[in-house]
Amino acid sequence: MSIVQCVPNFSEGRNQEVIQKIVEGIQSVPGVRVLDYSSDKDHNRSVVTLVGSKEVIVEGVFAGIKVATELIDMTKHQGEHPRMGATDVVPFIPIKDVTMDECVELANKLGKKMGEELGIPVYLYEKAATQNHRTNLANIRKGEYEGLAKKMEDPKWYPDYGPKEFNRKSGATAVGARMPLVAFNVNLNTSDLTIAEKIAKNVRLSGGGLHSVKAMGVELKERGIVQVSMNMVDYKKTPLYRAVELIKIEAQRYGVSVVGSEIIGLVPMDALVESIEYYLGLEDFRKDQILENRLYQE
Amino acid sequence: MSIVQCVPNFSEGRNQEVIQKIVEGIQSVPGVRVLDYSSDKDHNRSVVTLVGSKEVIVEGVFAGIKVATELIDMTKHQGEHPRMGATDVVPFIPIKDVTMDECVELANKLGKKMGEELGIPVYLYEKAATQNHRTNLANIRKGEYEGLAKKMEDPKWYPDYGPKEFNRKSGATAVGARMPLVAFNVNLNTSDLTIAEKIAKNVRLSGGGLHSVKAMGVELKERGIVQVSMNMVDYKKTPLYRAVELIKIEAQRYGVSVVGSEIIGLVPMDALVESIEYYLGLEDFRKDQILENRLYQE
Repeated sequence: MSIVQCVPNFSEGRNQEVIQKIVEGIQSVPGVRVLDYSSDKDHNRSVVTLVGSKEVIVEGVFAGIKVATELIDMTKHQGEHPRMGATDVVPFIPIKDVTMDECVELANKLGKKMGEELGIPVYLYEKAATQNHRTNLANIRKGEYEGLAKKMEDPKWYPDYGPKEFNRKSGATAVGARMPLVAFNVNLNTSDLTIAEKIAKNVRLSGGGLHSVKAMGVELKERGIVQVSMNMVDYKKTPLYRAVELIKIEAQRYGVSVVGSEIIGLVPMDALVESIEYYLGLEDFRKDQILENRLYQE
Repeated sequence: MSIVQCVPNFSEGRNQEVIQKIVEGIQSVPGVRVLDYSSDKDHNRSVVTLVGSKEVIVEGVFAGIKVATELIDMTKHQGEHPRMGATDVVPFIPIKDVTMDECVELANKLGKKMGEELGIPVYLYEKAATQNHRTNLANIRKGEYEGLAKKMEDPKWYPDYGPKEFNRKSGATAVGARMPLVAFNVNLNTSDLTIAEKIAKNVRLSGGGLHSVKAMGVELKERGIVQVSMNMVDYKKTPLYRAVELIKIEAQRYGVSVVGSEIIGLVPMDALVESIEYYLGLEDFRKDQILENRLYQE
């Protein structure tokens, strides 16, 4: 059975009753599962993580979006996090037995449905983007809800789906497809933050380092050490082992060592398998050799 | 949901109809899944791999054993593989959210049921063994079916469950609990088999090497290389990384290198996670951080 993850962000982080109703809407769809949800009062925003097969995931997230469209009024919304809609952003993420192209299709299916049935302007972003200037979510959201009516007058910002007119109550939504993100931090045996910052720079793409790695230096004050804190935005392109091994090599220049690492939050099994194949030197390993994968195959 | 694996061995490897009926018997139990089965004509023996939760696995394998008891007549059985019963051996193997102690309980539950309902003498073995001399399956099976009537007269070989009398048609069955076995081979860049044999000896427990590792040297003639072929019989005690790293160290003595490895057949995800934690230096990693594990939790 395929697994697609979907992580809609809603512009409500204070009224628990509203958040609860959105989650219940999603959970009402058979085969869809809410793995996690969390709200931030300052951001006035909630993030829901749901999973389901490619057959049911759109229906699942749509049920939540429908509730959000009814209960959230953007004319009254305030919060620190940039936002442009009641349902602000909806990425589809391939986890198992599903391709990125199929996730792009799911984004299109949801966008069309939101436009037609809810009257919400939808912009496709990341892998689902139809135009280059819409790949980056920050570009789409620039100006936020308050600037949206004016922005939509420009043909460059006509939505991919839904009405070309500004929707006062719901704003607009970015719907897209992207790889799962793995939050991976590598600890160094020094308290010198500048070393972590230098290594982070060398490891990330923009500093002449690795593709699909975003990195910064962070201080772990309690432990008296520093870490290279990374977002691995495409573990298929750049697996975890490559980042940690490169950090080890860079660390030598500063006379420091890697003393540990951590994965924050969830990680798809595939992201670990890529690295175990490297370290054990596995030849011809097939993922269906993992007993659990055989088990849940349909 | 817990996952228990069970790998019953039946003394029929030629009559496909009988094997098919045994498998169908197992599959008739809801929640039980047959992952694989294979027969060997020379051995005249079939091995079935089924999985299910601890609530259903005993009922599942019992359904197959019942069919085997009806259709297999040990007075007519011939085959190269040592055997003592129509259902020869039944190990329960903990895979996920189940302890070894619980698998020992399952072995007892099945043994009691086979004794009472089918009149089959049952010997508990490995982790389920009630007496030291019964831990090793080979000891229990020594003398095979043909020697069983005589062997059972000795109080030392009174069964743990079922009648003390010899069952002519069905023989006796060994029921036990053990860790999953991982078949893990490490390749060396030499054609000299004696080097693989020497390293195998140094790596296995009996040669002063690692606990829970059985190893031998094997020639891969087509590739012109050799390998250390291992059975990792308890990956929790001795993880895969420790074996491959020790082989690398031993290989240095002979001026050869590890050039790859392979896992044959199925491997529980946990066995890989143990090694990835080591290589990436992961701190405080919880297995429920693997997205798939969250997904199938009940």
